[in-house]
Amino acid sequence: MSTDQATAIPLRSKTPIPHPLDPLSVAECETARQSILKHRGSHVAIQFRAIALEEPLKKELCQFLDAEHSGTLNSHTPRPARVAKAQYDVVNVNKEVAYTESWIDLDSGDEVRHRAVERHHQAALTTHEFQAFADTCFASPLYNKAIDEFKLPEGFVVTVDPWPYGGPDEDEIAPRYMQGLCFARDTRSGNADSNHYAYPLPIIPVLDTATGEIVRIDRLATGGKEDGLKYGTHKASILDHCQPAEYVPELLGIPLRADLKTLNVVQPDGPSFKVSNESLVEWQKWRFRVGFSPREGATLHDVRYDGRSVLYRLSLSEMTVPYGDPRPPFHRKQAFDFGDAGAGRAANNLELGCDCLGTIKYFDAVMAEADGSASVSKNVVCLHEQDNGIGWKHTNFRTGRAVVTRSRELVIQFIITLANYEYIFAYKLDQAGAISVETRATGIVSVVNIDPGKTSPWGNVVSAGALAQNHQHIFCIRIDPAIDGNANTVIMEESLPMPMSKEINPFGNGYEVRQTPVTKSQWIDAEPRNNRVIKITNQSKYNPVSGKPVSYKFTPSATQLLLAHPDSILAKRAQFAQHHVWVTKYKDGELWAGGEFTNQSKKEVDGVSDAVARQDNVENEDVVVWNVFGLTHNPRTEDWPVMPVEIFQLHISPSDFFTANPAIDVPGSKNQCSILAPGAKSCCDESGAVQQAATSHLQGTGPDLDPKTNT
Amino acid sequence: MSTDQATAIPLRSKTPIPHPLDPLSVAECETARQSILKHRGSHVAIQFRAIALEEPLKKELCQFLDAEHSGTLNSHTPRPARVAKAQYDVVNVNKEVAYTESWIDLDSGDEVRHRAVERHHQAALTTHEFQAFADTCFASPLYNKAIDEFKLPEGFVVTVDPWPYGGPDEDEIAPRYMQGLCFARDTRSGNADSNHYAYPLPIIPVLDTATGEIVRIDRLATGGKEDGLKYGTHKASILDHCQPAEYVPELLGIPLRADLKTLNVVQPDGPSFKVSNESLVEWQKWRFRVGFSPREGATLHDVRYDGRSVLYRLSLSEMTVPYGDPRPPFHRKQAFDFGDAGAGRAANNLELGCDCLGTIKYFDAVMAEADGSASVSKNVVCLHEQDNGIGWKHTNFRTGRAVVTRSRELVIQFIITLANYEYIFAYKLDQAGAISVETRATGIVSVVNIDPGKTSPWGNVVSAGALAQNHQHIFCIRIDPAIDGNANTVIMEESLPMPMSKEINPFGNGYEVRQTPVTKSQWIDAEPRNNRVIKITNQSKYNPVSGKPVSYKFTPSATQLLLAHPDSILAKRAQFAQHHVWVTKYKDGELWAGGEFTNQSKKEVDGVSDAVARQDNVENEDVVVWNVFGLTHNPRTEDWPVMPVEIFQLHISPSDFFTANPAIDVPGSKNQCSILAPGAKSCCDESGAVQQAATSHLQGTGPDLDPKTNT
Repeated sequence: MSTDQATAIPLRSKTPIPHPLDPLSVAECETARQSILKHRGSHVAIQFRAIALEEPLKKELCQFLDAEHSGTLNSHTPRPARVAKAQYDVVNVNKEVAYTESWIDLDSGDEVRHRAVERHHQAALTTHEFQAFADTCFASPLYNKAIDEFKLPEGFVVTVDPWPYGGPDEDEIAPRYMQGLCFARDTRSGNADSNHYAYPLPIIPVLDTATGEIVRIDRLATGGKEDGLKYGTHKASILDHCQPAEYVPELLGIPLRADLKTLNVVQPDGPSFKVSNESLVEWQKWRFRVGFSPREGATLHDVRYDGRSVLYRLSLSEMTVPYGDPRPPFHRKQAFDFGDAGAGRAANNLELGCDCLGTIKYFDAVMAEADGSASVSKNVVCLHEQDNGIGWKHTNFRTGRAVVTRSRELVIQFIITLANYEYIFAYKLDQAGAISVETRATGIVSVVNIDPGKTSPWGNVVSAGALAQNHQHIFCIRIDPAIDGNANTVIMEESLPMPMSKEINPFGNGYEVRQTPVTKSQWIDAEPRNNRVIKITNQSKYNPVSGKPVSYKFTPSATQLLLAHPDSILAKRAQFAQHHVWVTKYKDGELWAGGEFTNQSKKEVDGVSDAVARQDNVENEDVVVWNVFGLTHNPRTEDWPVMPVEIFQLHISPSDFFTANPAIDVPGSKNQCSILAPGAKSCCDESGAVQQAATSHLQGTGPDLDPKTNT
Repeated sequence: MSTDQATAIPLRSKTPIPHPLDPLSVAECETARQSILKHRGSHVAIQFRAIALEEPLKKELCQFLDAEHSGTLNSHTPRPARVAKAQYDVVNVNKEVAYTESWIDLDSGDEVRHRAVERHHQAALTTHEFQAFADTCFASPLYNKAIDEFKLPEGFVVTVDPWPYGGPDEDEIAPRYMQGLCFARDTRSGNADSNHYAYPLPIIPVLDTATGEIVRIDRLATGGKEDGLKYGTHKASILDHCQPAEYVPELLGIPLRADLKTLNVVQPDGPSFKVSNESLVEWQKWRFRVGFSPREGATLHDVRYDGRSVLYRLSLSEMTVPYGDPRPPFHRKQAFDFGDAGAGRAANNLELGCDCLGTIKYFDAVMAEADGSASVSKNVVCLHEQDNGIGWKHTNFRTGRAVVTRSRELVIQFIITLANYEYIFAYKLDQAGAISVETRATGIVSVVNIDPGKTSPWGNVVSAGALAQNHQHIFCIRIDPAIDGNANTVIMEESLPMPMSKEINPFGNGYEVRQTPVTKSQWIDAEPRNNRVIKITNQSKYNPVSGKPVSYKFTPSATQLLLAHPDSILAKRAQFAQHHVWVTKYKDGELWAGGEFTNQSKKEVDGVSDAVARQDNVENEDVVVWNVFGLTHNPRTEDWPVMPVEIFQLHISPSDFFTANPAIDVPGSKNQCSILAPGAKSCCDESGAVQQAATSHLQGTGPDLDPKTNT
């Protein structure tokens, strides 16, 4: 789905030498493809899964970045090798190999590394596999026999949503499987976007992707609270009690709101950011590079403020979405949307004026087709500024003078669609040196059929016949800090009550701020009741004003962790989702909180849990901090048919990193386009009016425009 | 400070009969004043503290509102009496009376109720008292003697910030006191806004307001961690190690950022809201009234969505700010900003283009001067719309069609200044039926002097010689719900793990959603680890789709509660700050979480703690829900000299209140003013261009403008 706009593939403007963090160009992707085809030989068929930049080893990249930032970069500076990593299937050759990976040096075209991934792992599902799934079902006698048991209403057609298979049962030896959630779609309107999710069918076909066969049809319970694990009472006319749930405006059946007036964000002088060399962004003392990978979507690299390093890399590492309906086979509804599918692969091609307002810079991504050819997926990441209200304000009550600044944010956003569901991810930088990571959950909640008139403890009936099952979304953000350099120490800081005592706390108002350094790799849970804060410090750089080590901090939210039983497969494969913070020592390539291989995993392998188990020294070391947060989503009727966004934000803020408020030099001048309601005409929608208003402001001619009266 | 613009007092446009919730008009304020002067007689001197609307008894108001909303309102409908409540001092008459309150029927001019508040309570401090404090100090020999001990640098003058006295000690019998924090200001620039907070002086004068005498000078410790409770080593040249900390741009000493480009919010067709009869606001199916009181600032009343009642009243009830430095007399740095001072009294007169963008409606407030005359405080509340990113989105991966809406918010905002500090409060309504209450903390952190080179466990040195003390801000929001009527039941809902068992949870993925009704008035603490949610339900109205009672819900944040020792005066007078949620039965006039009298209180009287102790039945009753949250603020150097906003939001969302997403009918049309960066000229800043862009969009002439390509 990311290739719809790939009709014309523009070659990247020739930069003689790409920056080591620049994503692959079309030409580089083609170089990698050719190299692999050459190395594997013409006697085998190759199906590509991905071709993407292999980021340099940190040591090599840091040497390069040091030269870059010290201004000593020249043609003799050693550069990390420019390498592409390709994942592909060599069709029908070696049954012991799940898939193959090759690393191609893009200068020489040589294959510099090669890995045959063992059979017991599964590659992430590709867009092509998702797209082929429904056709395989429709061609399957087993599937068609199952469907024939149902009497669909006139004009309805079956539609299948591909899903990862989830975690196989303890004793199950599962080949590469996919499962499908089945619905019926009302075609009578002739509108291809009528919403099939309102009509769930109680079967799940299971596909063996190696054989291309539907091997099994799982039957789904449709009962209510009175039925326990039993199947319920559904009949052939399974959809007769369902109701339409349209969301495209022309099918809504009600008029759209007519009283919402236009709100435009206008930046008459253009944006305040500058983007150069494809990936380098500079804005308001921030400087960083935007990366994009098939698994993670957008990533931030080499994030610096006013010339000082803050983060080496910031990314969304993983998420898991387990469903809480205990009736089998719903226990296999557990997606790892990054590892099983890939946030980059699922990224929407964003559209001007829909996904953000104002002046937008879009980034494209070079992705590999099944034949390895490069396609440009347009507008997968957007960059824009937005106003976030007041940034800081103080009014001198003696003079009446108010000094107030707006808080401008820079937003790097991407949006992914995974069948029914959407996530909106954004990195936000502000002028006061803080970085936020925002997730918004939206889209259509996953529903299954429920018998007429029944309700269920495992979800909410959001539409007649449609049970939206309770579930969790648990996210992990990977923070690779570089607080004035890579050697950092994590401190757990808590504010704690003190005993009342004549000697130290005579009136009982005192409280203690206790710091506990993290010495070995470990997990830490949130404890807001102690105001538990995670500080990432540089113990060799002291703030000259406070005398404390420079640091950035965040307060982990005590959101609910994984509810699945610790002995369940769901919990074993999502160890990362069981603690709020993980502190590990940096290791090249260790990017995946839930492990590299999540698709059909039975346990988390080489995820954060294993990284922590190494018991590495993490004091004054190159540390990585992982933050886990989640949303337990017991659906409301208001979440239907498309749910309003549920927003979560992680704030990473400087703490004695700067000697004062870094935004103190943000101009506080008055916005000249704000107008009084109602009636007044904006000074910005007609030529010349801006000058007029500005003049009147500067002369202080009106009572509302006198800068001294704001007490 | 709220009266600077009161030179011209416009009489309110004559409405024959004000709505019972309309704030007092100037004429009504004058009626109340005249009545009190008449009733008290000309032989006494009266000093007014406040004159404001006395809200009707709920029973009477509800009868009126029922008629209003059912369309049966007419001239025969019984109306609640229109009553003003005045607080004032009868000077030098009765020493047993703290102050006097009168309730004046505004139709008859009669005093319908009268209360002499007993001596052991203290009225809130008025603007006039704050303003007079410094002059009293400067005229005091005791104060001047203390100041003379310090050798101020050339060109510095002393300045005094008035503060409430805080809680007296256990055995202290305190008359009406105020205390002052002393600083020196560098006048050499000739700029009246040079920042005195950088130069703290280690004394606190204490004023007896009855006698007008400075009765005591408290000495402040200036030591560091090595000094314990001892005073430290400061000398006469106490300010020599301090450094300037300017924030007004002309004194900054560094140039302002020149690379921040203008960002305008333009609403060419005007706002989507409608304000009528002074206080009635209608916007996007919402309908409510804005109130304003000297104690609370802005309040929302009779909040309805699409004709259904949601809230009877929403307000900020109280906050407390205790400081955690155990060295006396810092234990008396504990402000109750609503009860001690008054958020309405401290409200800024907002300025167009500074405090919000776009098209703004301002509300004025009628306040009483010391002589009881009405003055109009301009622009104390602002109302505007803003864009909050994507509201909901779904992309059909089969067709590539994305339907995406923006989330528009309506913001009702007011900002208060309390000496050094600012709070920005906002109620936000969205199109999906949710209500948020937002607090932003900004302004200048409270500092005390610290000896050269020392650091302290009780705060952070944010500027040489200036220790910003650790403190907490604990807020309480009062939610008076009316979920489809006043008879509501509060449910505590938790998501809990289940044992693994073949019978009910064979694979361990199941989890239980457990509901616990609140039967008697009680407190509840937050427990995000259980996804503890507070649902306010109407058990006699069922959602026809889900079969569940209609409700609104919120998730209380587990922010840190009061750290002060339970035996401390600070804790006793802030019981409300020790639990996250309080559920009480409605009682007329019970609006104050920390009790009516907080100024110099030694314990909370008639606050939420006492209300809960009544053990009222709250099932299917008129309930009130109070949410407490806070910020433990251990200052950073980045918080100096003016701190970047710290934001907290409470979200109150519908939960099975509607049968579907109420925002499903929000148009998803494309914003035609968004443009590509860099270079493109906005279609909105020149006449005619909007049409051109719109046409090109509708014809789908460009690849970025094709509505079908957004996968």
